[in-house]
Amino acid sequence: MREVAVLGVGQTKFGELWDRSFREIGIEAGLQALVDAKLGSGDLGGLFLGNMASGSLLDQEHIAPLILDYAGLAGRHLPAVRVEGGGASGSLALHQGFLAVASGLYDFVVVGGAEKMTDVLDTTANEIISSTADHEWEVVFGATLPALWGLIARRHMHEFGTTREQLARVAVQMHQNGSKNPLAHYRNKLTVEQVVGAGEVAEPLGMLDCAPLSDGAAAVVLGPLDVARKYTDTPVRIAASEVACDTMAVQHRASVTTLESTVVAARRAFQRARRTPGDVTVAEVHDAYTISALLALEDLGFVEKGRAGPEFETGRFAPGGALVINPSGGLKAQGRPFGAVGVAQVVELVRQLRGEAKERQVSGATLALAHDVGGTGATSAVHLLERAD
Amino acid sequence: MREVAVLGVGQTKFGELWDRSFREIGIEAGLQALVDAKLGSGDLGGLFLGNMASGSLLDQEHIAPLILDYAGLAGRHLPAVRVEGGGASGSLALHQGFLAVASGLYDFVVVGGAEKMTDVLDTTANEIISSTADHEWEVVFGATLPALWGLIARRHMHEFGTTREQLARVAVQMHQNGSKNPLAHYRNKLTVEQVVGAGEVAEPLGMLDCAPLSDGAAAVVLGPLDVARKYTDTPVRIAASEVACDTMAVQHRASVTTLESTVVAARRAFQRARRTPGDVTVAEVHDAYTISALLALEDLGFVEKGRAGPEFETGRFAPGGALVINPSGGLKAQGRPFGAVGVAQVVELVRQLRGEAKERQVSGATLALAHDVGGTGATSAVHLLERAD
Repeated sequence: MREVAVLGVGQTKFGELWDRSFREIGIEAGLQALVDAKLGSGDLGGLFLGNMASGSLLDQEHIAPLILDYAGLAGRHLPAVRVEGGGASGSLALHQGFLAVASGLYDFVVVGGAEKMTDVLDTTANEIISSTADHEWEVVFGATLPALWGLIARRHMHEFGTTREQLARVAVQMHQNGSKNPLAHYRNKLTVEQVVGAGEVAEPLGMLDCAPLSDGAAAVVLGPLDVARKYTDTPVRIAASEVACDTMAVQHRASVTTLESTVVAARRAFQRARRTPGDVTVAEVHDAYTISALLALEDLGFVEKGRAGPEFETGRFAPGGALVINPSGGLKAQGRPFGAVGVAQVVELVRQLRGEAKERQVSGATLALAHDVGGTGATSAVHLLERAD
Repeated sequence: MREVAVLGVGQTKFGELWDRSFREIGIEAGLQALVDAKLGSGDLGGLFLGNMASGSLLDQEHIAPLILDYAGLAGRHLPAVRVEGGGASGSLALHQGFLAVASGLYDFVVVGGAEKMTDVLDTTANEIISSTADHEWEVVFGATLPALWGLIARRHMHEFGTTREQLARVAVQMHQNGSKNPLAHYRNKLTVEQVVGAGEVAEPLGMLDCAPLSDGAAAVVLGPLDVARKYTDTPVRIAASEVACDTMAVQHRASVTTLESTVVAARRAFQRARRTPGDVTVAEVHDAYTISALLALEDLGFVEKGRAGPEFETGRFAPGGALVINPSGGLKAQGRPFGAVGVAQVVELVRQLRGEAKERQVSGATLALAHDVGGTGATSAVHLLERAD
């Protein structure tokens, strides 16, 4: 199998981008990544685009050729494929782009992720994101995505003694990190009191425990590692690209407080890369809800099951620690344009590995991990990245 | 690049399956394909699922893990990815499954296609299928998918003298072919008079020029060619898997009567397989509208541009001819469950190549071609298949 590298990255501002269209942000991210990779569009072999729900959100399916078209590339008749797996759509697109280059059939591809969430009412958007849970066994009974994560949080508190304040600490740290990210949806800082005192969404989760609905796009250029050095002094190797799935409905799992899809995807990724969780120095993990980040720390193997709350509170995952989590601000503060998230995670990690993350730079960033989740964990994807120069 | 073979195929009845759920038909097709391949689910490495619009049609996104889950396979935590490209979703999933096996990262995968179109009103379904055209430049001005194909048909008549009766002949032949297919949505035969006299949909296309909205699912098992013979006496090699895209909007193309995406995908496929259109003995082509089939014959290189109408009328593409088109009955008669179409085409062709097509068997089927289109041709995919024993 041919080794695959990230040659270039691009990303738009995340936020409520009411003055910009879906096609506009998709193109901006993709062109940035091509310029960053020092590739012309003539080198490009195809597009793999992660997107959750453009059909419901924008009345527009079939968006992969749309983006190529409005980027002025229709005349090259490149292959363009949209990939969907709920909130994990971006990292699934990355997996497809990885396979495309690894197979040898494609040389250079753009992997994009894009979502426009704020052109519909919040209530509509919440119905749409909840369609990534099990419609027939969860959603028709009134369970929304935040409600299901609320149940998971309550159970985690019951089983392991996780506290409301520990959940809040996640949001506080993410906003602290995001305050240094010019592309972040939110750059304001929060206190634990503010998070705990915010309006309730799905008990115990409040408004400030939930990542926002954002607009935004991100893109990376992938190519064969062996020729990557011709294009960049700082190629980043994809050491592992692994996807794992689980039951759609939370109730059908042996444990409500473990995402087995994450456990398995991480185990496969570390095996393939011959590394361990202890080797990771910077990670972007799924923190759509504060509880999601705690589950991620446990299920990825960074802390023992049940210990994420108190361990997070020590500050060991904050900048300056041996393992820095979500220097971008994560989904919570950088924002959550669903299909773009998994790609944006890799954009941030590549910038970290290259030493280009400015104020947010994690010193000694070597092995990086991206972790993306769809629904309540029916899909997880784990990517391991490392410098290859 | 590792060579890839089709080891097993499965397909449900196509039609108005009001008593069956999306998950049920998806599972039926997948399990049939596994049984046909003589594989246990323990051998399976992943699922690539083509689907156009489950979010809009069923309020359910994230359907790839859903199908694995309800097939009883959630415990294996396999990767599952949904792929979308309008009506070409099934063949894009096939392309992804092909890349997965070709890369060496996956050994055996199921490629499925499934769509449930008839659980919503016809008017709703028509809005949804039209979301595969350009929303901002076509659909908001009232253009539906049939209307756009109607424009293409009228222009083809104007440029090349194609007649209303020639269009009708396509529908007549498809129903003739479909009458022998027990899985077909329609098995009734039609006359040219009936097609011409049917209620108008989008002039010059009438009700009987348009493929139906169908429910249905299809699946194939792919694996490495070099081990395929352990599992089957009749492995079918994928000699080429090519995707090409074009502008979303018909008005932005140099010619309205040529699908450049099809021209390019076919050219790439024949080059890769070192074969020519003259080598193909059986093909399943995109006949969502009668005009679509005529364009396909021209753009795939089977007849000269503009000549498809009179050439089709000669009967040379009917059973008994040197090249048999759509022995399954095509989208017109076998049915059109959007995301399933591209996979169902390969199911039929594999049965033809194996000599298992019974009443529909094309004698001397050697090189087979599958051609799938999304929207009005923003995406085309061409697969070439041949016996490898």
